[in-house]
Amino acid sequence: MAKVVAEKLATKHKEVSVAEFFERNRHLLGFDNKRKALLTVVKEAVDNAIDACEEAKTMPEVKVDIIEMSEDRFRVIVEDNGPGIVKKQIPNIFAKLLYGSKFHTMKQSRGQQGIGISAAVLYSQLTTGRPAKIVSKISKTHEAHYYELHIDTRTNKPEIVKEEAIKWKKDRGTKIELDIEASYQKGDQSVDSYIRSTAIVNPHVTIVYTNPKAEQFVMARVADNLPREAKAIKPHPYGVELGILLKMVRNSDSRSAQSFLTNEFSRVGPGTAKEILFKSGIKPATKPRDLALPHVEAMMKAIKDTKIIAPPTDCIVPIGRELLERGLKKEVNAEFYSSVSRSPQVYRGIPFVVEAGIAYGGEQPADKSAKLLRFANRVPLLFQQSSGASFKSVVQTNWRSYGMNQSGGSLPQGPITIVVHLASVWPPFTSEAKEALAHYPEIIKEMKLALQEAGRQVGIYVNKQKRAKQEQERVNIFENYIPEVAASLSRITGKNKEGIVKNMRTMLKKSKEFIEANKKTLKGETDE
Amino acid sequence: MAKVVAEKLATKHKEVSVAEFFERNRHLLGFDNKRKALLTVVKEAVDNAIDACEEAKTMPEVKVDIIEMSEDRFRVIVEDNGPGIVKKQIPNIFAKLLYGSKFHTMKQSRGQQGIGISAAVLYSQLTTGRPAKIVSKISKTHEAHYYELHIDTRTNKPEIVKEEAIKWKKDRGTKIELDIEASYQKGDQSVDSYIRSTAIVNPHVTIVYTNPKAEQFVMARVADNLPREAKAIKPHPYGVELGILLKMVRNSDSRSAQSFLTNEFSRVGPGTAKEILFKSGIKPATKPRDLALPHVEAMMKAIKDTKIIAPPTDCIVPIGRELLERGLKKEVNAEFYSSVSRSPQVYRGIPFVVEAGIAYGGEQPADKSAKLLRFANRVPLLFQQSSGASFKSVVQTNWRSYGMNQSGGSLPQGPITIVVHLASVWPPFTSEAKEALAHYPEIIKEMKLALQEAGRQVGIYVNKQKRAKQEQERVNIFENYIPEVAASLSRITGKNKEGIVKNMRTMLKKSKEFIEANKKTLKGETDE
Repeated sequence: MAKVVAEKLATKHKEVSVAEFFERNRHLLGFDNKRKALLTVVKEAVDNAIDACEEAKTMPEVKVDIIEMSEDRFRVIVEDNGPGIVKKQIPNIFAKLLYGSKFHTMKQSRGQQGIGISAAVLYSQLTTGRPAKIVSKISKTHEAHYYELHIDTRTNKPEIVKEEAIKWKKDRGTKIELDIEASYQKGDQSVDSYIRSTAIVNPHVTIVYTNPKAEQFVMARVADNLPREAKAIKPHPYGVELGILLKMVRNSDSRSAQSFLTNEFSRVGPGTAKEILFKSGIKPATKPRDLALPHVEAMMKAIKDTKIIAPPTDCIVPIGRELLERGLKKEVNAEFYSSVSRSPQVYRGIPFVVEAGIAYGGEQPADKSAKLLRFANRVPLLFQQSSGASFKSVVQTNWRSYGMNQSGGSLPQGPITIVVHLASVWPPFTSEAKEALAHYPEIIKEMKLALQEAGRQVGIYVNKQKRAKQEQERVNIFENYIPEVAASLSRITGKNKEGIVKNMRTMLKKSKEFIEANKKTLKGETDE
Repeated sequence: MAKVVAEKLATKHKEVSVAEFFERNRHLLGFDNKRKALLTVVKEAVDNAIDACEEAKTMPEVKVDIIEMSEDRFRVIVEDNGPGIVKKQIPNIFAKLLYGSKFHTMKQSRGQQGIGISAAVLYSQLTTGRPAKIVSKISKTHEAHYYELHIDTRTNKPEIVKEEAIKWKKDRGTKIELDIEASYQKGDQSVDSYIRSTAIVNPHVTIVYTNPKAEQFVMARVADNLPREAKAIKPHPYGVELGILLKMVRNSDSRSAQSFLTNEFSRVGPGTAKEILFKSGIKPATKPRDLALPHVEAMMKAIKDTKIIAPPTDCIVPIGRELLERGLKKEVNAEFYSSVSRSPQVYRGIPFVVEAGIAYGGEQPADKSAKLLRFANRVPLLFQQSSGASFKSVVQTNWRSYGMNQSGGSLPQGPITIVVHLASVWPPFTSEAKEALAHYPEIIKEMKLALQEAGRQVGIYVNKQKRAKQEQERVNIFENYIPEVAASLSRITGKNKEGIVKNMRTMLKKSKEFIEANKKTLKGETDE
């Protein structure tokens, strides 16, 4: 019998490995063009390095070297003093996409999905054919391991080109070296700018960076302690979707529906669990695996109808008002700084904190648009500015009331730099390249409140400064008229003109001193 | 010995399945919100249905039903008369992400990556917990197979809830039924609008669509033949990247470098292969697997230095000028239509064709922005309009010279609908949701040329129409003055006034006829 069409077509169907998929769609991961590729490679390596150090409670010291090998070809070397990686994990971590420790853990970290660094390795292999070179050492008494790795894109598995134990002077840490096709430029979206911005929101990190022009920048830490450690949390019932709840029920080891709820969710105590089960018509002793779809649907509905307190927020670690300001001072030479760290909020069951900072005046141009620095989990976001939530919240804030110019739908104009930081267990990015935050109303609302709070302080400063300027002008006018006024007074009172001039100058001096003192108080109020 | 930090951390590392990844990041696949989710589900199912029919050389008849089950919950049923799917492939095709026939084939199709329909199944499961229900039959003599499927997201493998052989009245075809959380609205980005737009660029397709308001729309085909079949091509040397070339060399079955080049690339004959190998310093008889990285680098360089003719273009199937216009006429009630189908071009070694159409006047509002309909491989793009290449090319075209108003950086204003279609083996989308085309200069350039060509025809019509209107006005003025002019002439010549009036009216009548005839010619030129 002749084959029917479907039988002929069936032979063509096959699996696509995730590595092949991203190899072809590399622009989805931030490898659209040569310039961005350089930044993306550095960013993924540095983010991983800092995450690793923090997990090991080590003050991060990261060394970044970019060497120009030939036209369009660069070598990127990133080295950290983190915990190192055990031998058998090295190939998977660097040469397998979707492999990592952070996807299944609910706590704030820079990395999330286990794609970033292996995507950088994939890009390197695609554009130069060179293997990634890794060195890692986990303690003084262990040997260092050296690997040369490729990714077998048909299977998304590591291909080990070379492995050996070597001597490494470091006690512990990891080093990665990648050759890539790239181009280097200075400016807003450059590696230089990424490194500087990273230093602002990571005051506890030291970065030593050598760019392709062989210029070395040392960003020394300005904080002496690590940020508080982020604690992993369980999901909050309000954030769970029906399909996920169903999966949790099926895979649960708990003995009863009651213990399922109290064990696997945050903020569900015995009382809350009972209430949910009562409302869903499920007996507390029911075994989770005996719950069918209608039960789980009822449970879902009951959760929505039950008051449950907000999730704990020790899974997120904001930078803090003071450190944010200190970081901003290190970067921007301004005359006035203000910063705000809001209290935690929740969207889709996920806790988050918004922080904002403003640097006003100084050497910043008054006739240009404000500079906006966006961050998520302490990582600078350099692309897709206008499509993200941070931009939207700045644009929707009324900057005129704080003394800035602003036309509809634009950033304010004036000598200011604005920082917006979102810290969260799961920042909602608009793409795998993690370039912008999605427009969640809860997040935009918090960002606007933070900007208003920081903006008001700037507004007060700007207005006081205006008043002081006006007073100064009045004093200057008075000074110019002293000889004339003194002459008139001398004629009227018959007193000596020189004496009157002298008295008036004394009065003026006191008045000036008062204005100066006032100015200092004004600054002192906010410098602390 | 106590464990070092790295050893403790090592236990946390694990694989993330691609299904888990997209389950959490469902917004990347077009499931950002309930409204868009409905469209995305319909779109993936309809795109697959039409692709399948075309592959089996069957005139596509697609039935789409959307039923409102309760608030926020809808049932989507899409049925086609395609080739059907063999039993053992059904679970993988619908319940495994990154599985398909199109990723590894270089020819134009709607689907590409093997994600779309299984992503719809994933979304259904996540929001309603219901399995996908599939019926498929491959011929009159075969049984139909019925499946209920889930995706095991931890492994990205199908989980078969139910399977049985059933009777189905159809000779062959496939039907999918999904319950999803969604919301239904009319308007620009609605399912209704997607279905209408699909009919415009697929004049050979019949769609019978019943929306949740139980309104049925029948879009009957206006073309009697299937589009020419797209032929799969081999990659063109100019589009290959170093890493890919390396992979091809390693996996090659060819016996020599010479036959490797002629077998695995398009447009490389023995002469071209010899030239490339001579320039790279590789002996033609060298076995591909003996080629090391430096050889492949040399080959890469030699390819760039060798003149190779453009790739064949039978891998793409444009709609064609005439059918595009017929489709546009079906949808937009205008007074003038123009359309253009450009000749094939190449970007990154990938062939593409740009087509454009314009409908002018009629019932379209003159004081609003032009309506832009964007398509890629005959699929309407409804989201992210302003971030795509089509929008950019329209905005960068000077519409004033074609009689439209336009301010900088905006769509033109006037009573027009503009269609832009890109047909390509691999349209460069900006995200997995395939909502907008990336800004490739080669593509934008072609789009602008197509728009200019179609725009000029509209410009000629608009100007002729203006002149005709002026002439008409002159005629009208003349008519009003006939009695007065006749009286004066009668006084001067002494002839009878009524006679003069009669003569003048006859003259006028001829003149009017001339103008009318002129108008018709004007239309006729373009109606054909």
